[in-house]
Amino acid sequence: MTVTNTATPFAPIQNDTFLRACLRQVTDHTPVWLMRQAGRYLPEYCATRAKAGSFMGLATNTDFATEVTLQPLERYALDAAILFSDILTVPDAMGLGLSFAQGEGPRFATPVRDEAAVAKLEVPDMNKLRYVFDAVTSIRHALKGRVPLIGFSGSPWTLACYMVEGKGSDDYRLVKTMMYSRPDLMHRMLAVNADSVATYLNAQIDAGAQAVMVFDSWGGVLADGAFQEFSLAYTERVLGQLKRTGVDGKVVPRIVFTKGGGMWLQQMAPLDCEVLGLDWTVNLAAARALVGGSENGPGKALQGNIDPNVLFAQPEQIATEVGKVIDSFGKPYQGSGTGPTHIFNLGHGISQYTPPENVSALVDAVHSHSKRVRI
Amino acid sequence: MTVTNTATPFAPIQNDTFLRACLRQVTDHTPVWLMRQAGRYLPEYCATRAKAGSFMGLATNTDFATEVTLQPLERYALDAAILFSDILTVPDAMGLGLSFAQGEGPRFATPVRDEAAVAKLEVPDMNKLRYVFDAVTSIRHALKGRVPLIGFSGSPWTLACYMVEGKGSDDYRLVKTMMYSRPDLMHRMLAVNADSVATYLNAQIDAGAQAVMVFDSWGGVLADGAFQEFSLAYTERVLGQLKRTGVDGKVVPRIVFTKGGGMWLQQMAPLDCEVLGLDWTVNLAAARALVGGSENGPGKALQGNIDPNVLFAQPEQIATEVGKVIDSFGKPYQGSGTGPTHIFNLGHGISQYTPPENVSALVDAVHSHSKRVRI
Repeated sequence: MTVTNTATPFAPIQNDTFLRACLRQVTDHTPVWLMRQAGRYLPEYCATRAKAGSFMGLATNTDFATEVTLQPLERYALDAAILFSDILTVPDAMGLGLSFAQGEGPRFATPVRDEAAVAKLEVPDMNKLRYVFDAVTSIRHALKGRVPLIGFSGSPWTLACYMVEGKGSDDYRLVKTMMYSRPDLMHRMLAVNADSVATYLNAQIDAGAQAVMVFDSWGGVLADGAFQEFSLAYTERVLGQLKRTGVDGKVVPRIVFTKGGGMWLQQMAPLDCEVLGLDWTVNLAAARALVGGSENGPGKALQGNIDPNVLFAQPEQIATEVGKVIDSFGKPYQGSGTGPTHIFNLGHGISQYTPPENVSALVDAVHSHSKRVRI
Repeated sequence: MTVTNTATPFAPIQNDTFLRACLRQVTDHTPVWLMRQAGRYLPEYCATRAKAGSFMGLATNTDFATEVTLQPLERYALDAAILFSDILTVPDAMGLGLSFAQGEGPRFATPVRDEAAVAKLEVPDMNKLRYVFDAVTSIRHALKGRVPLIGFSGSPWTLACYMVEGKGSDDYRLVKTMMYSRPDLMHRMLAVNADSVATYLNAQIDAGAQAVMVFDSWGGVLADGAFQEFSLAYTERVLGQLKRTGVDGKVVPRIVFTKGGGMWLQQMAPLDCEVLGLDWTVNLAAARALVGGSENGPGKALQGNIDPNVLFAQPEQIATEVGKVIDSFGKPYQGSGTGPTHIFNLGHGISQYTPPENVSALVDAVHSHSKRVRI
């Protein structure tokens, strides 16, 4: 498969704070971006989505995807952009038929629920995902080097949850029934998913992504033991296949975020990735002590972890809560080598009900408070 | 308030395995009971509920509540009974108007969302909850000492979630908005809830409950820091007011279960309770090392923690998973004093879709495997 438009060189990076923090290098402030920062809480996003007609109409159109990816950067001093897409594009390309009914979550027309359906699964033709790679290249050009662009995918387990359930679930009964009663089928599905995700992320890297993130959104619903066997092992399988450098020869940091995975941080420490994402239940000081590493020693950069509901408070209260999170991590590494660093983010995607002006309060508080902490 | 029928003495206990394990004393097998063991997965429960007309019709009728509480004991060799009721009876008695629409979760007619509504809250007249205490006494008599009876309540925070949201929630946006923007209101609500829960549990103890459990079902949705301030502190306030002994002069063990609270076990260790409940994300060996205590030293008995979805596998697979959980805790204390003990349970309520025969496989596996572990 050839990827269009990477022949034109990308502009040099102007704000590499996020990339440096991923690599546990010194930065003058704590970089910040927000999961789902291009989304429904922004009126301009809703306007573009209305033009596109549907969520998939938006995601599959290069111009629209580029437009909405850049929208939050026009409003806020964010330190990274993230590709506008969905975690379920890969199973859609496998032929499961993804759709988004208005006001509902994603849904697959043909969920994978038996041996025959699992046997048919294979790594999809990446040409079916060309719209994603085209969007990556287009966004990277449109960014003109302002901030780095993050590519992403759902984790093998998280994809499997949706592939078996066919939609979101309260109890993950169907996918866990398969896991407990036919672990052989589940392992086959996860292997296909892992190889698909790796191929998919590599194509995003080739298209211009400067960092990649694996969203293990549903890893935290697994029991201890099952998490290691059915989620973590396949995230590892993805990481083992990823390209280390992007089109410009620079290192492409990998971020792994298991929502609800705070119990397993120590077991995630050996993962071949640079950054671990954390949700709001995790104490950052404890996480730093456990996996953040020390000066010039190995360790993970930590990303997270404020509760997105903080954004429903008043600006002064938001600033206070931001300060608590930054202080909980403590002073990041300030030397010339590598050491513990923090990337500020929410602990989950931003709510569609968030007042947009409150996001300014959060982003500005991260920058100002984190500069004060460094003094 | 007077409680009926405790004048007639209760029959002496025949199977005190559960109570002994709560007190970290030796038992010949690991006791087992299941959260929501009297419930919709049992056809006989559905039949009684149909007679009662509604969930509240069932819960408020002493005979029906007694009948359904005993139903699972007829089928399975369970080591404890738990009062059939709901965690939301207390806010209902506060006047919020609890109802259960068919096929939906609980709903309050008048949620608590502003300063005026919070100001009006007070500890409800326990006579409005007389049906609960009557049920406790009736069940205790009907049990004839076969196994102990557990009483329960929602935690102050969990009640507040429903009181503000008015129903179940995906994101807890309304209750967290109040918490972050008006912490003063939230603290007032939680204080009233804590005093109400304590009064309610004490009345259950007076009516014959032999153990009590606080369900902090939604503690795990809180951020680190917020959990300690808005959930744990008020669970502590409840525990501080509880009677230590029941109508027969015996110690009434207290169980605290925070779903999703595995991150905070160490901070729960000082709680004035005998047992900590754990969900399936927790590694039992690690929890035992952290809070299980040592021989004749202080510590908590641990309750849990198999994934309820295991019950959708085949009986042999269920037995294997039961074995893993029991082995993960390891050999319980076997001496003549006190030491680490385990009470087997699910990590959450049993699913309404569970095949009833699979519950036999689980209960029998707990008994047989845990006897083998003791040899």
